[in-house]
Amino acid sequence: MAVLLTILTDPRDPTPRRTLALPPNTSILKSAHAASIEITATCGGRGRCTSCRVKFVAGTIPPPTIMDEIQLGNDLVREGYRLSCQCVPSEAVTVQVAPPLEERAFQILGAGPGVVGMGRVTLDSGIRKQVVKVSLPREEHHQISDLEQLAAALGVTPTDVGLAVLQGLPAALRDDPAGVTVTTFAPPGGRGSERVVAVERGDTAGMKFGLAVDIGTTTVVSTLIELDSGEQLASVSSLNPQAVFGGDLMSRIAFAQFDPGNLRKLHTRIIGLLNRHIEEACRQSGVLAKWIYKVVVVGNTCMHHLLLGIDPSFVGLAPYAPVMRHALVLPARELFLKVAPEARVCLLPLVAGFVGADAVAVALATRIYEGAAIRIAVDIGTNGEVILGSRDRLWACSAPAGPALEGAQIRHGMRGALGAIDRVTVDDDIHVHTIGEADPLGICGSGLIDLLAGLLDTGVIDWTGLIRVEAREALPPKLRERVVMRGEERQVIVLRPGEASARQEVVLTQDDVRQVQLAKGAIASGIAMLQHVASVSDETVAELMLAGGFGNYVSIASALRIGLIPPLPKEKIRYVGNAASLGAQLCLVSETERQRAESVAARIEHVSLAAHPDFERIFVDAMNFPRPG
Amino acid sequence: MAVLLTILTDPRDPTPRRTLALPPNTSILKSAHAASIEITATCGGRGRCTSCRVKFVAGTIPPPTIMDEIQLGNDLVREGYRLSCQCVPSEAVTVQVAPPLEERAFQILGAGPGVVGMGRVTLDSGIRKQVVKVSLPREEHHQISDLEQLAAALGVTPTDVGLAVLQGLPAALRDDPAGVTVTTFAPPGGRGSERVVAVERGDTAGMKFGLAVDIGTTTVVSTLIELDSGEQLASVSSLNPQAVFGGDLMSRIAFAQFDPGNLRKLHTRIIGLLNRHIEEACRQSGVLAKWIYKVVVVGNTCMHHLLLGIDPSFVGLAPYAPVMRHALVLPARELFLKVAPEARVCLLPLVAGFVGADAVAVALATRIYEGAAIRIAVDIGTNGEVILGSRDRLWACSAPAGPALEGAQIRHGMRGALGAIDRVTVDDDIHVHTIGEADPLGICGSGLIDLLAGLLDTGVIDWTGLIRVEAREALPPKLRERVVMRGEERQVIVLRPGEASARQEVVLTQDDVRQVQLAKGAIASGIAMLQHVASVSDETVAELMLAGGFGNYVSIASALRIGLIPPLPKEKIRYVGNAASLGAQLCLVSETERQRAESVAARIEHVSLAAHPDFERIFVDAMNFPRPG
Repeated sequence: MAVLLTILTDPRDPTPRRTLALPPNTSILKSAHAASIEITATCGGRGRCTSCRVKFVAGTIPPPTIMDEIQLGNDLVREGYRLSCQCVPSEAVTVQVAPPLEERAFQILGAGPGVVGMGRVTLDSGIRKQVVKVSLPREEHHQISDLEQLAAALGVTPTDVGLAVLQGLPAALRDDPAGVTVTTFAPPGGRGSERVVAVERGDTAGMKFGLAVDIGTTTVVSTLIELDSGEQLASVSSLNPQAVFGGDLMSRIAFAQFDPGNLRKLHTRIIGLLNRHIEEACRQSGVLAKWIYKVVVVGNTCMHHLLLGIDPSFVGLAPYAPVMRHALVLPARELFLKVAPEARVCLLPLVAGFVGADAVAVALATRIYEGAAIRIAVDIGTNGEVILGSRDRLWACSAPAGPALEGAQIRHGMRGALGAIDRVTVDDDIHVHTIGEADPLGICGSGLIDLLAGLLDTGVIDWTGLIRVEAREALPPKLRERVVMRGEERQVIVLRPGEASARQEVVLTQDDVRQVQLAKGAIASGIAMLQHVASVSDETVAELMLAGGFGNYVSIASALRIGLIPPLPKEKIRYVGNAASLGAQLCLVSETERQRAESVAARIEHVSLAAHPDFERIFVDAMNFPRPG
Repeated sequence: MAVLLTILTDPRDPTPRRTLALPPNTSILKSAHAASIEITATCGGRGRCTSCRVKFVAGTIPPPTIMDEIQLGNDLVREGYRLSCQCVPSEAVTVQVAPPLEERAFQILGAGPGVVGMGRVTLDSGIRKQVVKVSLPREEHHQISDLEQLAAALGVTPTDVGLAVLQGLPAALRDDPAGVTVTTFAPPGGRGSERVVAVERGDTAGMKFGLAVDIGTTTVVSTLIELDSGEQLASVSSLNPQAVFGGDLMSRIAFAQFDPGNLRKLHTRIIGLLNRHIEEACRQSGVLAKWIYKVVVVGNTCMHHLLLGIDPSFVGLAPYAPVMRHALVLPARELFLKVAPEARVCLLPLVAGFVGADAVAVALATRIYEGAAIRIAVDIGTNGEVILGSRDRLWACSAPAGPALEGAQIRHGMRGALGAIDRVTVDDDIHVHTIGEADPLGICGSGLIDLLAGLLDTGVIDWTGLIRVEAREALPPKLRERVVMRGEERQVIVLRPGEASARQEVVLTQDDVRQVQLAKGAIASGIAMLQHVASVSDETVAELMLAGGFGNYVSIASALRIGLIPPLPKEKIRYVGNAASLGAQLCLVSETERQRAESVAARIEHVSLAAHPDFERIFVDAMNFPRPG
């Protein structure tokens, strides 16, 4: 018996709809296609991508398949998304199709709260695939080679073909009489000749993927993207395994300093991680690693140098100069990345020792270089950066918050994982929310900022950061009991064992407050310094954009309250997602963007905080919290 | 007390001489220089090269130092050569200086019987060293990088600097305040921009070396050369370790065919051997491997492909086309060669599947492309080649003799090593000479040819190759007793145990004769075929050049007698040494020559023996021995 299926065909408008009878054991995708309703199915309806996903708006949502879980992830599944190619409803349902591919390509690149002001992206990855029939050498006397036949068929010269392609060439040319698929990479605007990066037996023209990698000091994020559509097929993130050798940049540089063995350790660790990311992204998406022909990597200068095996010792010593700054394109085999051996690995350019390719990527993704209005982008992380400017001028500085906002060096701190206290409100008591609403295990950065904001509002902490144990008598009774002196240490008890299912006590110590003050001071003084150098008052700032993993979770109200960011009207402050990763993705799908990265990098003026005569005054000021009133 | 030292100052003429008083504890070199007598000392008189060597002609020769033994080797030491920088005589002596460097550069390149017609070689290796003082980045605000400072000092762009150079750049720039030595490679005639291949702390401008490698099917020869002088500092040769997987090309291709594991085995074996050669050449010469900035490799097409890890499967199948033919320049690190990581490895171009870069090198070294007269170069080896032509046209074919002339597949065959019978005369008996006049162990190629020539002259063997046991009664008594029938097998007993200290019998079997006939037939028919295709009669041939390890030991009279080469007047036949290796050395010291290799390769017309309708007739004819009269 057929089941009634209603499809809302416009992703933005619930009005246009079609209702059809769904034959038994037929997927939503199949029925829709039979009725000429357009649902994109990039992978051909094999559960290998997310393009055909629909959202259930009425009726019982069928339980997710394994493919739903792999492709869509827990969040989308919980929100009622399913892959229409995998979904066979057994009762009447109404679903809405997802935005079509071109829109989504943009939407994914501008994911989350949106990369403000970003227009459509031209999809020109530089990677081209063509199926060609190559004649084999036939003549014994006037012999020519396989390669010459290939080059003639393509209109390239033999030197445009890499060694790894040559190694498999004879077999590829002879394995499939129908032809071979040749993948080439051509930088835009004829800046170099076309490079042959792969020759594969048969027709693989539909398989064209790339990887965008953002190597942070603490976190590494890799995103697998279908190059022609810009569709994101998989995203893998994990801790940077170099972190065991030093949490922040300076300690990691110190570890590598003048010790080639340690440098090699850091180098091989990150290469190893990227190869695990490639494996995992391929596993999630069903893409073969040999179909990844372009990789774009961003990261701060130290991460960039360590990835290349370049000694970063002197990046840690004044004047903190990088070893190199130019944009680099390498074959993947040189970095031992397990994608197509001749895949192009593109590293974006650097600006300075502590303003790296990640900052360039943020500038690119936020389009800060484009408008007339002055905007500020703050990438909050262990090694954050601040960029300020407009189409007229751009300044950048590093804002090394350290790992405190990632929960490190905090008594009961933890990363933003299951069980972390991520939201706190303080009234006559302290109330917490945990990630996944799980039993609280510790407190993460956004929780810390909320907590401090609340404690400032209630007078538990004064503007210098002191926990006012002496003034606790003025507090409401419940709150009062949380403010204690234990031995020499001032503490605020956030949770006692048993409260909100806490298994152990969670406290905020005076030292914790100082650590957060150092972190927020670094960021706030970075912003203040750029405003100072550029003579930009708070009133002149059109927008402040919060980027980075942490930046997107912090409460704007709390960030304003503790003075992490300057006192702008709330509506001028926006989250812009992981802008560094977005910038890498932009350069992956668009050579125009990658070329633009070079001109943007060249335009950025680096401001060294430590070398500026006014820095000390600004930093001390930024360490304190805004005074009441 | 001073010692009297007489120096014969002209290496070719014992007349011009100077006598000086040698102060105590003063080296010959030092005294000579003090007296303005010119003795070249490339290494600065540190015993690191052989340029200052002198030959003792009167007086007691002082015992050799370790440096004498390392640099000069046993033979030269025994002949009375010493390094003048190391030598402090204690009594009156007379020494003759060695030929000065420029002469010797040429002499070494044209070593042995001389590469006929070769003019002076322009020494332009493309490798340039310069000591530069690079300013370090100083500014914290407008930061630039180490690399940009270097590029500015050199007038190159950052992309001209390889990754391996970048990795060590910061330390090199800061280690020596006096400056760094930058090594660059520039192809001739502005065909590419200057490439930075090394940056070293301090002044190493005097250290500039290269390696010429000839990879034969059976033997690999590597020669270490000082690039500015062309001086040969060390030469290492050994068996090709791939030979255990197949003695000739076809069996080696069959081993690799369609089996990536076996291909990898062959690839890694040759890379491993080259690295051992590099180590040994450096040990012999005192040169550091990191000072080797250029490597030129020649070899036949199969050896070339295996070195690059390119599948040679289809080189073994009609139409025997190579995978690639163009000249290639790679960084050494791509082939894992343990010289300077960014050293340029230059592979000469190929002509066809069985006429490789070694043939191109032979053409180059013999200057066969230069004159108006028709000449023939025969590179005799397991996979030999024949080249015929003049400045007007050039033809080449392969002449796969197989390993018989290297002693393989011969009952008592052996390579030309200590104890091998290398010379044979036959009159009323058989008389042998062994290499090193050691006890005979077996017979090598040149001995075999001599033996066959003698047996043909005395009628033991007829023109079809048959050992005429039936006609032995007509022979002189001693010879007669050596011609025997054992079971079904016709044999000639070359040595009985005890004869000429032989510990075991050495015989020539009927099968051995057939093997040599096949080998000589391959070479003779190759020559005949090229003469046929080019319509060149024996009378028109101005010269026939014998190249290759074996080619230089064979007796010309015997080679003529058995018909290995066409019946030309003896004075038209010359030995030209290991011409393939010489060609590689030419391209090492001269980019002009390397560029010329490409045009020569393009001019060579390949003649496929098997595909030619007249081949069978010519080959059958060439298998036989010349008929008497």
